[in-house]
Amino acid sequence: VSSPHSRPPFPLHLEVVQSTKEAMLALQGRNPVVQPLLVIIQAGEDDCLLEINKKMAGRIGLNITQICLAKECSEDEIVEEVLKLNEDPRVHGVYLHLPPAYITSRVLNTIKPEKDVDGISDLNMGRLVRGDLSKGFVPPIASAVLDLLEKHDSALEGKTVLLVGGEGPLGVSLQCLIERSGMVALKGNWSSKSLQRQVMQADAVVLLGAGNMDLPPTWIRPGAAVICCEPTLETGIVEYIMIVTITLYSCSRWLQDLKLNLTTSTWTSFSHISRAQTPKPVDQLAEEIGLLPEELEAYGRSKAKVRLSLLDRLHKQPDGKYVLVAGITPTPLGEGKSTVTIGLVQALSAHLKLNSFACLRQPSQGPTFGVKGGAAGGGYAQVIPMEEFNLHLTGDIHAITAANNLVAAAIDARMLHEATQSDKALFNRLVPSVNGVRRFSPIQISRLCRLGINKIDPASLTPQEVSTFVRLDLDPSKITWQRVVDTNDRFLRKITVGQASTEKGQIRETGFDIAVASEIMAILALADSLVDMKNRLARMVVGTSRSGQPVTAEDLGVSGALAVLMKDAIKPTLMQTLEGTPVFVHAGPFANIAHGNSSVLADKLALKLVGCDGFVVTEAGFGADIGMEKFFNIKCRASGLRPNVVVLVATVRALKMHGGGPNVSAGAPLPKEYIDENLSLVAGGCRSNLRKQIQIAQLFGVPVVVALNVFKTDTQAEIDLVCEIAKECGASNAVPCHHWSQGGRGSLELAQAVNEAASRPSHFKFLYNIEMPIVEKIRTIAQQVYGADDIELSPEAKAKIDYYNQQGYGSLPICMAKTHLSLSHMPDKKGVPTGFVLPIRDVRASIGAGFIFPLVGTMSTMPGLPTRPCFYDIDLDPVTEEITGLF
Amino acid sequence: VSSPHSRPPFPLHLEVVQSTKEAMLALQGRNPVVQPLLVIIQAGEDDCLLEINKKMAGRIGLNITQICLAKECSEDEIVEEVLKLNEDPRVHGVYLHLPPAYITSRVLNTIKPEKDVDGISDLNMGRLVRGDLSKGFVPPIASAVLDLLEKHDSALEGKTVLLVGGEGPLGVSLQCLIERSGMVALKGNWSSKSLQRQVMQADAVVLLGAGNMDLPPTWIRPGAAVICCEPTLETGIVEYIMIVTITLYSCSRWLQDLKLNLTTSTWTSFSHISRAQTPKPVDQLAEEIGLLPEELEAYGRSKAKVRLSLLDRLHKQPDGKYVLVAGITPTPLGEGKSTVTIGLVQALSAHLKLNSFACLRQPSQGPTFGVKGGAAGGGYAQVIPMEEFNLHLTGDIHAITAANNLVAAAIDARMLHEATQSDKALFNRLVPSVNGVRRFSPIQISRLCRLGINKIDPASLTPQEVSTFVRLDLDPSKITWQRVVDTNDRFLRKITVGQASTEKGQIRETGFDIAVASEIMAILALADSLVDMKNRLARMVVGTSRSGQPVTAEDLGVSGALAVLMKDAIKPTLMQTLEGTPVFVHAGPFANIAHGNSSVLADKLALKLVGCDGFVVTEAGFGADIGMEKFFNIKCRASGLRPNVVVLVATVRALKMHGGGPNVSAGAPLPKEYIDENLSLVAGGCRSNLRKQIQIAQLFGVPVVVALNVFKTDTQAEIDLVCEIAKECGASNAVPCHHWSQGGRGSLELAQAVNEAASRPSHFKFLYNIEMPIVEKIRTIAQQVYGADDIELSPEAKAKIDYYNQQGYGSLPICMAKTHLSLSHMPDKKGVPTGFVLPIRDVRASIGAGFIFPLVGTMSTMPGLPTRPCFYDIDLDPVTEEITGLF
Repeated sequence: VSSPHSRPPFPLHLEVVQSTKEAMLALQGRNPVVQPLLVIIQAGEDDCLLEINKKMAGRIGLNITQICLAKECSEDEIVEEVLKLNEDPRVHGVYLHLPPAYITSRVLNTIKPEKDVDGISDLNMGRLVRGDLSKGFVPPIASAVLDLLEKHDSALEGKTVLLVGGEGPLGVSLQCLIERSGMVALKGNWSSKSLQRQVMQADAVVLLGAGNMDLPPTWIRPGAAVICCEPTLETGIVEYIMIVTITLYSCSRWLQDLKLNLTTSTWTSFSHISRAQTPKPVDQLAEEIGLLPEELEAYGRSKAKVRLSLLDRLHKQPDGKYVLVAGITPTPLGEGKSTVTIGLVQALSAHLKLNSFACLRQPSQGPTFGVKGGAAGGGYAQVIPMEEFNLHLTGDIHAITAANNLVAAAIDARMLHEATQSDKALFNRLVPSVNGVRRFSPIQISRLCRLGINKIDPASLTPQEVSTFVRLDLDPSKITWQRVVDTNDRFLRKITVGQASTEKGQIRETGFDIAVASEIMAILALADSLVDMKNRLARMVVGTSRSGQPVTAEDLGVSGALAVLMKDAIKPTLMQTLEGTPVFVHAGPFANIAHGNSSVLADKLALKLVGCDGFVVTEAGFGADIGMEKFFNIKCRASGLRPNVVVLVATVRALKMHGGGPNVSAGAPLPKEYIDENLSLVAGGCRSNLRKQIQIAQLFGVPVVVALNVFKTDTQAEIDLVCEIAKECGASNAVPCHHWSQGGRGSLELAQAVNEAASRPSHFKFLYNIEMPIVEKIRTIAQQVYGADDIELSPEAKAKIDYYNQQGYGSLPICMAKTHLSLSHMPDKKGVPTGFVLPIRDVRASIGAGFIFPLVGTMSTMPGLPTRPCFYDIDLDPVTEEITGLF
Repeated sequence: VSSPHSRPPFPLHLEVVQSTKEAMLALQGRNPVVQPLLVIIQAGEDDCLLEINKKMAGRIGLNITQICLAKECSEDEIVEEVLKLNEDPRVHGVYLHLPPAYITSRVLNTIKPEKDVDGISDLNMGRLVRGDLSKGFVPPIASAVLDLLEKHDSALEGKTVLLVGGEGPLGVSLQCLIERSGMVALKGNWSSKSLQRQVMQADAVVLLGAGNMDLPPTWIRPGAAVICCEPTLETGIVEYIMIVTITLYSCSRWLQDLKLNLTTSTWTSFSHISRAQTPKPVDQLAEEIGLLPEELEAYGRSKAKVRLSLLDRLHKQPDGKYVLVAGITPTPLGEGKSTVTIGLVQALSAHLKLNSFACLRQPSQGPTFGVKGGAAGGGYAQVIPMEEFNLHLTGDIHAITAANNLVAAAIDARMLHEATQSDKALFNRLVPSVNGVRRFSPIQISRLCRLGINKIDPASLTPQEVSTFVRLDLDPSKITWQRVVDTNDRFLRKITVGQASTEKGQIRETGFDIAVASEIMAILALADSLVDMKNRLARMVVGTSRSGQPVTAEDLGVSGALAVLMKDAIKPTLMQTLEGTPVFVHAGPFANIAHGNSSVLADKLALKLVGCDGFVVTEAGFGADIGMEKFFNIKCRASGLRPNVVVLVATVRALKMHGGGPNVSAGAPLPKEYIDENLSLVAGGCRSNLRKQIQIAQLFGVPVVVALNVFKTDTQAEIDLVCEIAKECGASNAVPCHHWSQGGRGSLELAQAVNEAASRPSHFKFLYNIEMPIVEKIRTIAQQVYGADDIELSPEAKAKIDYYNQQGYGSLPICMAKTHLSLSHMPDKKGVPTGFVLPIRDVRASIGAGFIFPLVGTMSTMPGLPTRPCFYDIDLDPVTEEITGLF
C-alpha cells in the first residue's frame, strides 16, 4: 500500500506498532496467564516479508509460531494444519502466508472465523458486506486503504473514491468500507474509455489489481490521493513495511477482541422468557454466557461439559454473589428447594437482568425408577431436558460406580492373592522383571515412602521390608469399603461374596450402597482441581490392616486408574432452565453420610462466569440444620468461598406440621388441616422451627431471606402471617414465591429481596475451629445447631474417635449423619425439640473426602423398590422417541 | 422485479414453477419418504404475497408451514423460533416473511446457512462475494435480475450494467453476479450529476432502493433494459407473481441441493494419510462422510453418536460391499483381527480411494484395568483417541449395566413383595386407585393378554384372575438373570444376597457377570431398530415360575424403563482410525455365551454411507469356527445382510502352533520355534487349521482372502509358504499385511485382494434351516464346522431342549458356547482334531436376543484381577491431563 503521487507514504506502520503494543500490554495486564499466539502457515522457507513480520512481532511482544510446509504442499496438508490450529486453545490467530493459488475456498473456509485474522473466510466477508464490523475481521489491506484515505483528508464525508480494477473480494470489501465511511464509491475499469474522466473527477483513486499498469500523472486532480494496492517485492523497502502493517492491523484488532476477560455486562439473551419445552442448543447457551468454544465439550444437543481451563482464563475476574438455598425441617414430601433455586435464577436473570447461574446436584438414577420419579424442579421452574437430567446425563455417576467398584475388586483380589502366595511370589509378581530389569512403579514408590522405606532399587529391600511392602494385610472384618450400584437394589444391602470355588473359601460379608453414597462422589463434590481430586482419591482409606494401620487406595495401586476413570466426571455439566438460564449440574453426594451439596468446582466456574454483579444460586440438601451447616463448615471450608445470602425455603404445609399438625407421610392423603386455612398451626410452626432455622443461619453471620413456596391451597392470610413472623424472627426479608405456576415472574419478589440482602455486608464465620477435638466439634453442632443438651458417645464411637485422633485425622470437619425430619435425632419430634441428649452410635470417616461422620441412628444407604415402582409407567415410544411417565 | 420500459415482463414465474416442480418430482422419485418442508416465519396475518406464495407452493407440491408471530413480536421471539427450526430435521428451509426492521443481524445469522433459502446470512453472502456458488443460496431477487438480463439479451458478455442506488448487501450481491457473468457493473448514484450520462451509456439499468423515484424515459438508450427491484403491493398483480418467483427461485435451488440422497463419489478427504495422533474433529469427519448435522450427536470433540434416522434418509441408497474379518484358531495371545480390520479400511480408503468404514466392538472396561490393557488395534492401525475407545466411550456399557441391574432389582423386590403380601394387597398396590380411579398401565395390559385375561377394567377380574395377574411366582432356584458390573470382580462370581434383616430372610444364591455378558448387550448388537430393541427387551426371560412358565421383563413391568435407559445406547458411536477413516464402535457381546459380533445397526448405517462401491469391514470374535459361524447363522439372519468376502487372519505363530509347535501361553516367553524360521511347522499349520477354516467359510459360499499378519520375526520363506498353501487350499487369494508398522500402506495388497474378491459372485447360504430341531442344529454345527463325529447331550441338556421346544423356542438359531482355543471342546487339541464327540453339558437360552446357547464346558463370565493388575501403571498427569500406562 502506498500513495506514490501525492506525498510520501505516511509512517502508518509506526502508529500501528504503537497501538498494537498498547493493546498487547493492556491484555497482559488483565490476564498475565494467557499469551496471545499467532500462527503463520507458510510453504517453504521464510521470505523477506516474513522476516520483517517476525521482527515487528518481536517489537510488540507477540508470540509467533511458524508452520513450514513443503513448497509443493497439498490442499489436504494445509487443511489438516488449519484444523489442528482451530482446535488448539493456545492458538488465537491463524495467518496464511501462502501463494494465492494455495488459498482455495476449502482452505480459507476451514479456518475458524474467530481465528481468521486476515478476514478471508466467507463468514467474515459476509459480515463485512452486511456491515457488521463488531464481529469478524476486515481484510487488512482494506483497513490500511481506509486509514490512508483518512490521513489524506480528515473530511471524508461525500468525497468520491474511484476504485479501478477491483472485481474480487478485496474490491468488494473496500467498496463496502468506503461507502460505510460516507464516501461515494465509484467503479472504474482499466479498459473503459471513460476512465480518464472518472479519474479526473475523483477525490481519491484506488488502484486494485494494477499489476504493471499505472495512471498518467496528468490525469490526477491536484490534491487527490492515489493509492496503489498491489505492492510487490521489487518496489522497494517502504512497501515491505506497509505489508507488515497489514499483519499488525489484524493483530491489533484481534488482540482487542480476544475474549481473555469477560465483561460483566448482562447476558442480554436471557431477557426473553421461553417456556418452550425445547432447550436452546448448548453451544449457543455457552456462547451467550461467554464460554469459548474450546472450553465446551458437547454431549448431544442440550448438555455439555465445561473444561476447568476456564478458571485459569478468568482467574482475575471477581466472583459474583453467592447464594445458598436451604430449607426448614421438611415433611417427608419435600418443600421444593430445587424449584425455588430455579425460580430464583430465572427471576434474577429474566426480570432483574442480572447474570445468574443455578448449581444443582445430579440426581441418582435409582430413585427415578423407584418411588420418587425424576427430579428436575417442577412446573415452570425446571431444568430441561428433564429426561437427560434424570438419566445418564454425561455419565458422571457411572464413572463413580466404575471407580468405586474397581477399588472393591482390588481389595478382594489382593486379599486372595496375599492369602495364597509367599512374600517372594508376591514381590516377584508385584515388581516383575521386564526384559531383565525390575522397577517399582511410581505408585509403589509412594507406598514405600509412607512405609518409611526410602529405596528405589527393588533388589535392595530386606526380606522384612519386602514383606511389609507386599502385604497390605487387610483385616477382613475391618474393611469399610462397599461396592455400589446406581439402582435401588435392597437385596444387595447385605451379601456374602467369594462363594465360587475359584475364590478358595475367602468368603466375606459385605454390601452395596447406592452409587451416590460412594466416598468418590463426596470427593467429586469437594475437589477444587484435578490435582486435588487425584490426591483425595489416593488418600481414601478402604480398611485397616491386622496391625491397625489404615490401608489407602494408593496402597492398593489403584489411585492413578481412579483418576483416569474420573477425568471427565470432574468437568461440570452445563444445562439450562425452562427459561434458558444456565445451570451447572455436578455431583450429588448423600446428605447424611456425606455433605449433600453440589460441587465446589461448579460453584467456582459459575461465580467467574456471572461476573461481580451476577448471582450464583446453589442448593444444600435437607433442612438448614444439616445441609446448610455442612455447606458452611465443610464445603465453604474446602472451597474458600463465602456466601452472601441464605434463602430459607418454607411451606405452609411444613410450618403447620411444626405447629402441631397431624403426621404427613408419602402416599397417604393429606389431613384436612393442611388443606384448609389454619392460622394458629402456621404461627406455631413459624415461631418454632422457622425461627430456629433462621437463628442457625445467623450463627454463621449470613443474612437470611425466607422464601415461602406457595401451594394453591395456601390462603392469603396464611401467606401474610408467615412473612410477617419470619421478619420478626430476624429474616432480612420474607416473600411468597409462585415459580411453580409462573416461572421466573413468580419469583420476582424473592429475586429483589435476595439482591437487596446481597448488597448488605455479610460477616461469615465458621461454627467451630477445625483444630478443636473431634468430640468438641460434635458437641458444638449438637448444642448450637440442633439444640441438644449434650451428646452421648457409645463405646464404639469413643474407640473410633481415639483411633482417628491417633491416625492424625483429628482436625477434619464433622459431617453429622442425622435424620432430616427433625432438628433432633427423633424423626417424629417436630418444631424445636428440647431437653434431649444426642446419641452418637458410631463414628466413621471419609478420609479422601476429608470429614469424620458420626452416626446418629441408622442411615440407609441403599433404597428399595416398592411393590409398584414408577417403572411401571415409564415408557419410550419407539417411533417418536418420546419418553412418558418419567415425571 | 419488472422491466417496465423495454417490453412486458417475461413469464418467468411459469418457467420457474415448471423447473421447480420437476426438481420436486425428481427428488421424490429418489426418496419418497422425505417431504421437503419450507417454513415461513411471519408477523401477523397472511398478506396477499403470502397467499400467492402458498398457492404456488401448492402447484409445485411443496409443503409449507407458517409460523405466525404477533405483529409486534420481539427479536428474541423470532430467534427462538428460528433456533427450533434449525434443530428440526423435518424442516429443510426457513423463509423470513417479516418487515425489514425485524430482520436484524442476530436474526439473520441465527438461521443455519443450509436452511437459509433466502441467502441473507453473512456466510451465504460471503460465499457469493467470494464466488463460490456451489454452496449457499443467492438472494432470489439477485437471481431474478440476472435471469431477466439474460432473457433480454442472451449475449451478456461485455455489456455494461448500471446499478443505481445499490449500497446494501443486495447491491453487492447483484454486482458480484453481474461481474461473474462477464458484464461490466458500474455504479450510479441517484444524486450524482453524471447519472443521466451513465444511464444513456448503459446496456441495462437496474434500479435499487428506488422507492418512488424513476428515470425519465428519455434517458434510456433504445433497446436497453431497465429493471426495477422494488416492487410494492400497489404496483399491480404482475409484480406479485414476480415476487412469488423469488420464493420459487430459492426452493428450486434448495430442492436440488437437499442432501436427500448420497452421491457415491469418493470421500476425497481421505486421500491424505495423517498418522498425526490428533483426531480430526468429529463434526468434520461426519461432514466428510455425508452425515447431516442433525444426524450427529457429538460427545466431546472426537466421538459422536449417529442417529438412526439416517437409515430412513438413505433407504434407497444401495448397500456397499460387506466384508467379514475372521481368524484361524488363535493362540492365547490373539492374532490381530482388529488391527487387520483397521489396516484394511485404511488401505481401501487412502490407497484405493474407496469409501470404507470399519465396524468394531466396544471393549469392556474391566479387562482394561485387569490383565490385558486397552484394545484399539495397534501400531499404525488404531482407533483414536485410544483412551476414549477403552474407557467410558459414550456410556453404552454403563447403560446396559443400569438396565440389566434394574431387572435384577425388580426380580428380588418382586419376590419379597409377593412373599409378604396377600393377593388383594398386591393388587391394590399394583393397580392403585388414583383420584378414585383404578387403571391398568399399558404394560400390565400386555401381561393380561399373555395370560389370556382380556379385560380392561380392574374391578372385573375374578379373585383367581387377580391372583394369576399379581403373582409372577418366580421359582428362586430357576432364576437365570444375573447382575452385572463392568469390573473384573471375581469375588462376585457366586454370592448370597438378601442377608439384611429388611429382606426378611429371603436370601438367595446368585452372581454377577461382567457387563458385556448381559443379554441386553446381545440384544443391542442384534436389534435393527428401536422398535425391535424394545420388543426384544420385553421378551427377555428372567426365570421360570413355580408352575414352569417363563417370566419375562415385561411381566416384571420393567421393559419400558429398559427401553428408556437404552435409548441413546442404540445409536452407534462414530470414531476414526489413525489415518482418519471412519469407524463405528457399537456393542461388544461375549463371543461364547453370546454371538461376539458388533452391532447390526452399525453395519447397516455404514453400508448406506459408503455407497455401492464402498466397503464396510466388520469383525467377528474368536476363530472362524465360532465368530464367523455365529456371524452368518445368527447376525446375518437377524440383519438380512449378506457378506461379499471373508478375510481370514492368520499368523505364522499360530500356524506353527497348529503344525505341532510347543505350547504358547500369555505371560511366558515364546519358545524358540516361534522366533526362528521353521517351514515344516508352518506348512503343518497351513495344511491343518488354516485349510479347515477356509473350508468352513466355503460352507457358506463366500470367497475367502487369507491375510497373514506379519510379525518382525517372520521370514520371507515362511510368508511365501503360507500364501502359497492358502491358495492351494481354496483361498481366492492370500497376502501378507504390514499394517502394524506401515498403516494402510502396509495393507495395500490385502485391499486389492479384497476388492478383487468382492467383485466375484458370492453364493451365500445358511448352514442350517432355522426350523430344524434344536438337536439337529447343534449336530450340524458340531459335525460340519468343528469336525466332531457326533454330539452327546447331558440329561440336563436334554431336559432343557424339551422345555424350550415346549415353550415355542425351538426355531431359534444356535449360539455355541465353546472354547476358542481349539476346533474341538478340548483347548489343547490344536490343528484339526478328529474322532471326538462334542459333549453338550447344558443348554441355555437368551430369548430376547433370540438364540439358544448350548454349553460345551465351563464358560467364565467374570474375569478376575491378577496379583499385579495393569492399573499399577495407569496414571493421569493432573496438569497436562495426559494418560499413561493404558496401552
